[in-house]
Amino acid sequence: MEIKLSTQPYKGTRDFYPREMKLRNWFFGKIRKSLEAACFDEYDGPMLESLDLYAAKSGEELAKEQTYNFTDRGGRSLAIRPEMTPTVARMVAAKMGELNYPLKWFCISNMYRYERPQRGRLREFWQLNVDIFGCDTFEADLDVIESAIALLRNFGADETMFRVHINNRRFFNDVIAAIAGTDLEGSKKVSKVVDRKNKVTRESYENDLKALGLDDEQIARIDALYTMSVEEATALCPDSVGAGELTALFDALNATGLAKYCVFDFGIIRGLDYYTGTVFEVFDEAPENNRAMFGGGRYDNLVGLFVKNAKISGVGYGMGDVTLENFLVTHGLVPDTDKVGTKVLVTRFADVPLDAYTSLVDIMRGAGVRAALYLGNKKFGKQIDFAAKENYSHVVIMGGDELAAGTVKVKNLDTREESTVAIAELGSFFG
Amino acid sequence: MEIKLSTQPYKGTRDFYPREMKLRNWFFGKIRKSLEAACFDEYDGPMLESLDLYAAKSGEELAKEQTYNFTDRGGRSLAIRPEMTPTVARMVAAKMGELNYPLKWFCISNMYRYERPQRGRLREFWQLNVDIFGCDTFEADLDVIESAIALLRNFGADETMFRVHINNRRFFNDVIAAIAGTDLEGSKKVSKVVDRKNKVTRESYENDLKALGLDDEQIARIDALYTMSVEEATALCPDSVGAGELTALFDALNATGLAKYCVFDFGIIRGLDYYTGTVFEVFDEAPENNRAMFGGGRYDNLVGLFVKNAKISGVGYGMGDVTLENFLVTHGLVPDTDKVGTKVLVTRFADVPLDAYTSLVDIMRGAGVRAALYLGNKKFGKQIDFAAKENYSHVVIMGGDELAAGTVKVKNLDTREESTVAIAELGSFFG
Repeated sequence: MEIKLSTQPYKGTRDFYPREMKLRNWFFGKIRKSLEAACFDEYDGPMLESLDLYAAKSGEELAKEQTYNFTDRGGRSLAIRPEMTPTVARMVAAKMGELNYPLKWFCISNMYRYERPQRGRLREFWQLNVDIFGCDTFEADLDVIESAIALLRNFGADETMFRVHINNRRFFNDVIAAIAGTDLEGSKKVSKVVDRKNKVTRESYENDLKALGLDDEQIARIDALYTMSVEEATALCPDSVGAGELTALFDALNATGLAKYCVFDFGIIRGLDYYTGTVFEVFDEAPENNRAMFGGGRYDNLVGLFVKNAKISGVGYGMGDVTLENFLVTHGLVPDTDKVGTKVLVTRFADVPLDAYTSLVDIMRGAGVRAALYLGNKKFGKQIDFAAKENYSHVVIMGGDELAAGTVKVKNLDTREESTVAIAELGSFFG
Repeated sequence: MEIKLSTQPYKGTRDFYPREMKLRNWFFGKIRKSLEAACFDEYDGPMLESLDLYAAKSGEELAKEQTYNFTDRGGRSLAIRPEMTPTVARMVAAKMGELNYPLKWFCISNMYRYERPQRGRLREFWQLNVDIFGCDTFEADLDVIESAIALLRNFGADETMFRVHINNRRFFNDVIAAIAGTDLEGSKKVSKVVDRKNKVTRESYENDLKALGLDDEQIARIDALYTMSVEEATALCPDSVGAGELTALFDALNATGLAKYCVFDFGIIRGLDYYTGTVFEVFDEAPENNRAMFGGGRYDNLVGLFVKNAKISGVGYGMGDVTLENFLVTHGLVPDTDKVGTKVLVTRFADVPLDAYTSLVDIMRGAGVRAALYLGNKKFGKQIDFAAKENYSHVVIMGGDELAAGTVKVKNLDTREESTVAIAELGSFFG
């Protein structure tokens, strides 16, 4: 067997054969259903966008480095989308005056990032984005966090398997100001150090804070925050707007029974300067896999890239398909999608006319049963092998004798049970 | 309002706002269901493929001209897929020995072609591909044609709205040889002229045939074929394998009741040399829109690009999303997807605690009803306006008095009818 062209997919991308595709459709179907139950609306945009969108957000160099980008024959610089936020910001900006706020929007879209493929990070991936646009109050934060919890619960996950870690950027800045006397810029610099905390040594962490002018006592007061409850933490600067937002959010989580899935965590920053209020990360609680799976938060200026002096706030999160799949596999929450209910193969003998068989298929399809005729001319035993390998649940067998008697044999491939069924009853047999 | 960056999508691509996305999901959901009913399995592959795949099929120059292509930092030439066949051929070739033939596969995937956008032709489009691989006999042709008919029928189309025009390449070559004494190459040259027939003048058509050595009488005999029935046509060269295939296919179409959707049409060629047997095109029968919508046929060497001396046959078709949408719109077959069943907004008054409202939402979602809490602090009337614009079917209203009484008011936004419902009955009220 001589190979002429490579049959491998491009590095960092995946082929979805029917088995993988069934799983993907199952994942996305559950996600869609869960979000639609909460009245989120799905949207999508093009795979190709102007490179400017990403350059304006992240700087041209970074945008070029992280995306697949090229120039079209009209001289336009394009990129394959590496994330959804610039696209949805563009879409909202384009119809800013006519949309009906607050918008509850989600998408499940594929995107490309130019990076070295590794566990959980592929070059082509799908990402769920969930956002509420145009609602400034904590209710939207609650609704978005609730949607993430409902999503995981709908997959069968419970509070032993995941936890939502919540903080607030405004509160962070205020409490650091109260402890260390920093201005807003100073607090933001401290947030960068806190954000890196688990990636560096304790010594490096302390040195970075000291370089910002903090002393041992101030560092110890920050340390105390990492294990505080939300009540203890907010009591440190009760007049902070952020403290008020945290309190309102946790009161609502308590009142709605969602608190058991959530925890206040002063260490949650989410790098980007872009976030302005509530920030959160959803952690996998499995000891062998304990890490942030996905997260999000509130940002105040969605359309700023497009429309000067216009502000539309947003709160939301993005979740990668590989992350979710790893979580569900770790916790044994992926069903056997090969077993997909009733699916019937009509086997064939050469001495029975084709249309006698196709009419059986029609009867079953008419009754809402997935059914197909065996294609080809292999022997009966091979037809049964084919059916078993393709996860057909039943085969229908009709030779000349059965045809004359107006009956068929139905064989259940799981139980090996055989039934004789009148042709007229075939639809209701599976009903 | 100062615009900084353009809010328009890239030329030839579309934004799918929730309304357009509902329609897209409705389309694709119907297609998926129709094909799954006939036991076709869905697959997908990556958006980026090696440019070699398209260059090997169509020549490097054409591949570069018709695709978005570029070189990655590892020096690999890549293209955004302009069609699915090379991808699925690669996937089949990669697992050639382990797959369970015949494969009945479909995909609904987005792809990009570099062309001037015009009606029905966009740069980004979705395409349904339906194929059966590894079955050489006419039953697979029948099954594929049946799937196309079932698909359109499931959208509500009937035999007055579309027709499948069927021909056979082997038969074409044989009957042209019988009429004009051509060899295989000569017959193929005639097929190119016939393929262009409706795009050129009669004079040009005749001149092209004469240039191939045909005389007036031979041209007249070909003319006669365009209006012949399949019986008349196949009688012209009864020993042709292609004639036998046509006869078997039309016999089966007659026996299975599908003949009323089909017609023999000697003018159907489908340009590409790639097709070897049955070819067909599905026509829109609307007088104002009468044209081929999509088509396909049988090809003998799917994996030839990848594996030398290996042959796996295929028969299938591809259909663009814009084509299908135009057809359904023309025939009034697109429902009002804005009206999507029960979807309930819980409105709010400031003096009722938040969790009293969220518990109503929980009750309804628990009963499988899509429900959401109004987010924000607008006045009651504005909340109702919001609900109407977002196509909520009902609003639930609960002030302090209702809360005390353990009831809510449910208002149907279509009929304006109001009901008082006990909170405990809210789930079953919509059930």
